[in-house]
Amino acid sequence: MDLNDRRTIRRYADRPVSDELLRHLLSLACRASNTGNMQTYSIVVTRSEEKKRALAPAHFNQPMVTEAPVVLTFCADYNRFSTWCEQRQAVPGYDNFQSFVGAAIDAIIFAQTFAVAAEREGLGLCYLGTTTYNAGQIIDVLQLPRLVVPVTTLTVGYPAEMPELQDRLPLEAIVHNEVYTPFSADAIDKLYAAKEALPDTAKFIAENGKETLAQVFTDVRYTKENNEYFSKILLDVLCKQGYLK
Amino acid sequence: MDLNDRRTIRRYADRPVSDELLRHLLSLACRASNTGNMQTYSIVVTRSEEKKRALAPAHFNQPMVTEAPVVLTFCADYNRFSTWCEQRQAVPGYDNFQSFVGAAIDAIIFAQTFAVAAEREGLGLCYLGTTTYNAGQIIDVLQLPRLVVPVTTLTVGYPAEMPELQDRLPLEAIVHNEVYTPFSADAIDKLYAAKEALPDTAKFIAENGKETLAQVFTDVRYTKENNEYFSKILLDVLCKQGYLK
Repeated sequence: MDLNDRRTIRRYADRPVSDELLRHLLSLACRASNTGNMQTYSIVVTRSEEKKRALAPAHFNQPMVTEAPVVLTFCADYNRFSTWCEQRQAVPGYDNFQSFVGAAIDAIIFAQTFAVAAEREGLGLCYLGTTTYNAGQIIDVLQLPRLVVPVTTLTVGYPAEMPELQDRLPLEAIVHNEVYTPFSADAIDKLYAAKEALPDTAKFIAENGKETLAQVFTDVRYTKENNEYFSKILLDVLCKQGYLK
Repeated sequence: MDLNDRRTIRRYADRPVSDELLRHLLSLACRASNTGNMQTYSIVVTRSEEKKRALAPAHFNQPMVTEAPVVLTFCADYNRFSTWCEQRQAVPGYDNFQSFVGAAIDAIIFAQTFAVAAEREGLGLCYLGTTTYNAGQIIDVLQLPRLVVPVTTLTVGYPAEMPELQDRLPLEAIVHNEVYTPFSADAIDKLYAAKEALPDTAKFIAENGKETLAQVFTDVRYTKENNEYFSKILLDVLCKQGYLK
């Protein structure tokens, strides 16, 4: 799959992903940009049934976690770098929020470079946003030490499905020139018109017993209550792992 | 440049980047994965000399900002989505830390997809990690409203240099199998041996008047004092933009 026709793949063929290919793709991802060439990220590879089953609840038991041949957890990691500093008569100062954000950004750049390279090789992937919801559980299962925080997960395998290409908003919704130009009510109506007119949208609203597509997001999929609950948990995880006081 | 031989490019040829190419690359980046297809990111395109000069101090006056034909600021953005919700009888609940992290991850996935596509087209790029240091200044210059926070910046142009390929740590430093395995002192020595033996490393240590490469990072490039100062600023910015209480 190339960039312009890629799909998220949630069902995988019964075909193994070789260690050789996985190492090749991870090596390519290492070539991506990173802050100061410190490489403050790490990846935990899960192939065993045991660990997949242990990770699954952290991802709300989405079936991809146990069904994909490979699960990759991408972590912000100042642990290795700080250990190196301490062995070299240098005093590391990376137990703070800015360091977490920088390491997290580099981990995501790494993950997406891996994703592009993997899809080009015919693999299918699914990002799991649940990683930051239940980071604490993942830390326990993968035995992540201080200054290591999981920021995203990819399930990886050969595709056993080819879903429809998803819609996207017009580029005008995303791109601003020189300054950010807030949208008028009329502009919002126009930018969301095509999405709201999709046959799947009406079905989705009806299935969820709502009046508008936006209500499905606010009342069902990404609720204020859940967001606030998982915000508190994530801030606690950052404290526990040493990135916040 | 393909993934395996890409370099960060900081000097740009006197050759314009067309709007058509830029729009094509941004459209490709829109195809990347994103949470719930909410597309909670936005990009501000800076081409004017005036705005480049205004942005430069936020990036510590690194010359790429004023010399690149195009500067792209990638933002976590729940503003547009929340506005749409409010117009559709839905009550948005995205003024929290978890929503910021999710939107920031999607903005970075977008940025890196753009980067891969742009480098494939022969463009050269440089990520600016200064974006999260001085996010408040950038917010003022680009007039970013509530729930919009810049998370990274790319300077974009045709390359006027071809730097050496940078070193990377062995894959064993980055990849863990099934669980995270902390490194012994001996393992750290081995993983960093090649980097420490590079001719540039000795030069870099001498130029900075230090004893070890690690000290250049901890005492000069990424100091505890600066990290803590910019942590406080970034947390304040997240409060001001509505993502933290």
